[in-house]
Amino acid sequence: MYVILVYDIEQKRVGKMLKLCRQYLNWIQNSVFEGDLTDVKLNELIHKAGGIMNKEKDSMILFKSRQEKWLEKGVVGREKNELDNLI
Amino acid sequence: MYVILVYDIEQKRVGKMLKLCRQYLNWIQNSVFEGDLTDVKLNELIHKAGGIMNKEKDSMILFKSRQEKWLEKGVVGREKNELDNLI
Repeated sequence: MYVILVYDIEQKRVGKMLKLCRQYLNWIQNSVFEGDLTDVKLNELIHKAGGIMNKEKDSMILFKSRQEKWLEKGVVGREKNELDNLI
Repeated sequence: MYVILVYDIEQKRVGKMLKLCRQYLNWIQNSVFEGDLTDVKLNELIHKAGGIMNKEKDSMILFKSRQEKWLEKGVVGREKNELDNLI
């Protein structure tokens, strides 16, 4: 499953969240990630994120598409360096 | 066309960018917007955003899907108040 993940997390928890998300997805912008995940891996990520987030204050949005080809991506302006995507 | 827009803009230009994007899309998180746009309206938005952004420093990512039903959305944690979506 193709996943886009966007979070809005308080500064003090951002480091942990970033590290977690990069274990599962590619980092494409400030707080935006994308990649292919199985349902099992996605649920694992959501579960772990829940352990980091303060659910009153933080938020994480997931967009899921069964196929990547259903989504077209475009970037305006600066693109993150490809090296950023290497863990 | 169903559009997800995410930007990463320097603080001093965020206000203008937010205002612009809310004219075309629904604001769903910090720097994330979604909605249905025609090609013409989307191009208009991209053109206007280009006038606000510093393309060396800022970035805007667009995900486009021909049909909203191809995307499933989930939110973990705080949801933006629905009132935020009213312009």
